[in-house]
Amino acid sequence: MPPMDFDIRSPAPAITAALQHRIDRKTKPRGALGRLEALALQIGVAQQTLSPQIRQPHVAVFAGDHGAARAGISAFPQEVTWQMVENFLAGGAAINVFCRQLGLDLTVIDAGVNHDFGRRDGLIDAKIANGTANYLERPAMSAAERDAAIARGRILAHALAANGCNLVGFGEMGIGNTASATLLTCCLAGADLATVTGRGTGLDDAGLSRKQKLLGEALARGGRVSDPLAALAEYGGFEIAMMVGAMLGAAEKRMMLLIDGFIVTSALLVAHRVAPQILSYCVFAHRSKEQGHAVQLAHLGVEPLMDLDLRLGEGTGAALAFPLVQAAVNFLSEMASFDSAGVDDKLESAQ
Amino acid sequence: MPPMDFDIRSPAPAITAALQHRIDRKTKPRGALGRLEALALQIGVAQQTLSPQIRQPHVAVFAGDHGAARAGISAFPQEVTWQMVENFLAGGAAINVFCRQLGLDLTVIDAGVNHDFGRRDGLIDAKIANGTANYLERPAMSAAERDAAIARGRILAHALAANGCNLVGFGEMGIGNTASATLLTCCLAGADLATVTGRGTGLDDAGLSRKQKLLGEALARGGRVSDPLAALAEYGGFEIAMMVGAMLGAAEKRMMLLIDGFIVTSALLVAHRVAPQILSYCVFAHRSKEQGHAVQLAHLGVEPLMDLDLRLGEGTGAALAFPLVQAAVNFLSEMASFDSAGVDDKLESAQ
Repeated sequence: MPPMDFDIRSPAPAITAALQHRIDRKTKPRGALGRLEALALQIGVAQQTLSPQIRQPHVAVFAGDHGAARAGISAFPQEVTWQMVENFLAGGAAINVFCRQLGLDLTVIDAGVNHDFGRRDGLIDAKIANGTANYLERPAMSAAERDAAIARGRILAHALAANGCNLVGFGEMGIGNTASATLLTCCLAGADLATVTGRGTGLDDAGLSRKQKLLGEALARGGRVSDPLAALAEYGGFEIAMMVGAMLGAAEKRMMLLIDGFIVTSALLVAHRVAPQILSYCVFAHRSKEQGHAVQLAHLGVEPLMDLDLRLGEGTGAALAFPLVQAAVNFLSEMASFDSAGVDDKLESAQ
Repeated sequence: MPPMDFDIRSPAPAITAALQHRIDRKTKPRGALGRLEALALQIGVAQQTLSPQIRQPHVAVFAGDHGAARAGISAFPQEVTWQMVENFLAGGAAINVFCRQLGLDLTVIDAGVNHDFGRRDGLIDAKIANGTANYLERPAMSAAERDAAIARGRILAHALAANGCNLVGFGEMGIGNTASATLLTCCLAGADLATVTGRGTGLDDAGLSRKQKLLGEALARGGRVSDPLAALAEYGGFEIAMMVGAMLGAAEKRMMLLIDGFIVTSALLVAHRVAPQILSYCVFAHRSKEQGHAVQLAHLGVEPLMDLDLRLGEGTGAALAFPLVQAAVNFLSEMASFDSAGVDDKLESAQ
C-alpha cells in the first residue's frame, strides 16, 4: 500500500444531539463550561460514545536535523538538536517536567538527527538519514525518504494505539525546523514569506532579516510548491514528515491528536491536505508566539485552547493543554445531572 | 484588632534578578515559556525564594444567599444555592470533578445560605445570617455583619495556612451574586451599569433588561458608594464579604491567591482597595464570559492566564488554571540548565 492511502473515517454526526443533551443536563447553566463543552462534544463524536475516555495519553517528540541549519537560519548551533535529545533522555527538559506533572507518557523518536545515539532506553531509532539536505541547494529529501518517514510515523501511531493509547500530543525538536515550517506554510497556506517568518528560538532583527533573505532564496530555487507531498520533500524535515505519517495513522485509529505550535501545525497542514477529515480528531492546544502560527490557524479555521506566548516546541503547549482535555471528558462522565442531584433547573419565566 | 487592620507585606524585589537568571539558564530559549516564566518569577518573589513550591493547594468555595434574588435578577430560583451546596457535599458538581482530577483539596463554606444544613462533613458552618437583606429596599448587611464575615474569612485563611497550604483558589456559589458583583464593580471600578451588567447564569434579553432596571433602582436607593467597605455592606453578599477577609488573610500569610471569575474578582476589588499590595500574591486564572469581568481586569491592570468562555463560578476557572501554576513552579525547580545538561547556548553571532 502506498503511504498516502490512509483510511480515515469522518465520525458520524448522529450522536451529536444525544451528547449535547447529556451536556445540557449537567448541574450548571447551559454553556457555562464554555470551550470545555465544545471539547467534550468533539471527543464524544470522535469516539462515537456518550462516555468518552482518555486512555494512556502520550506525548511523542520527533527529532531531526536540517541541512539548512548551518546557513544561519537559527539562533542555535545544529548540535543542540542531539544535545536536547540527550536532555530528553535524561529527563531534564521542559517537556519531561510537564509530562511527569501531568501523567503523560513521553516517547522520543529520532527521525533523522545528525548524531549516533546507539541503542538507548527511551529513544526510538527511526532515523531516515543524518539530517536533511540543504534546501538552499537541492530538495531537502527524496520522495523515497519522505515516503519512508511517513510510513514509519504511521507505524509508530498504530503501535501506540495497539498499546491502548487513544490521545497523542505531538512535539518536535530540530534546530532549523522553524524555517522549514515557514516554507511549508508559505506553500500550503498561500501566505507571504514576510508574514510567516518569525524569530524561531530567538533571532534578533539582523538574524530575522538574514533568515527571510535565505528563505526567499530557497523559494526562488525550489518554487512555491502547492502539492503537499512535493512541498514536504522540497522543504520539510524528517521529523515533520514522520509527524505527518503519525498524525494520519493516529486519525486512522480514531485517536485524538493534541496539536502543539508552529512546527507541529506545519506537519498538520500537509496531513490536512492529504485527508481533510483529520480535523475531526484534532484539538489545538495553544497559539504560539511564533507569528506564522496565527496564519496556519486561520488557514485551518480553528481556535486553540490557550494563548500563553509559548514558543519552545517539544510538545510543551500540547502537554500543558492536556488537563483541559481531561477535564472536558471528566465533567461529562462524572458530574451529576439536575435530575440525579435534585437541583432545580432555570426558572420558567427566565427561560 | 478591627478587621481591616491587616498586616500584608509587599514582597521585597531584591531576589528578582537572581530568579530571572535562574529562569534564563534553563535549557530553552530565553522567554520561550512565555507567561509561565512571568508566573515563576512572581511566585518566587512572593515566596522570597529561588525554589518556590506549591503545598497543599486548596479551592475554597464560599456560599451565600441574596435577599434580592427573589426580585428576578437571576435565571435560577434561590433554592439552587443550597441545592448546589448539597451537590458539592455529594461530589457531583463541576468543581468537585476538577478538584479530584487536579489534586486540589476542596473546602465548602456556608457564609450565609438560607438553609439549615445541620452539622455536615465537608461543610464549614460560618453562617452570618440566612441570606442578606434585599438591597432594593435597604443595605444588604449591617456593618457588624460585614465585619464578622471579613473576620471569619481571615480566620479561615489563617487556618489553611496553619495546615500547610500555601495556595488558595477562590470560588463561590450564590444565586443572585452576579448582580451583587455588578453593583460592587460599578462602585469600585467606576464603570457604567450598562457596561458591567451581564447575563449571569443565563438570562435572556428580557431578563437582562429587567436585571439592569432593578440594579439601576438599587444604585438610585443606595448610591454609587466609593468607600470599599461601605459598598460591600450596601450591595455585597456574605460569601463575597467572607472572601474579602480570606483574601486579605491569605496575603498576610504570603499564600498565593488564585482568582476565578467575575464574583471572586468583585471581592478582590474590595480587598485591593483595603490593601493594594495584595496583587503581588494574586494569579488571575481566566477571563470569564460574564462581560463585567473584563472591566474588573482592566481596572486592576491584569491579564488572566486563560480565556475559555467559562461562566460557571464555583472556582472552576481557578481549578483549571492550577496546572499552569504548578508547571511554572516545576520548570523552575526541575529543568536542567544549559550548564548541567551540556547543551550549547545561543550562537554568539546570533545573539
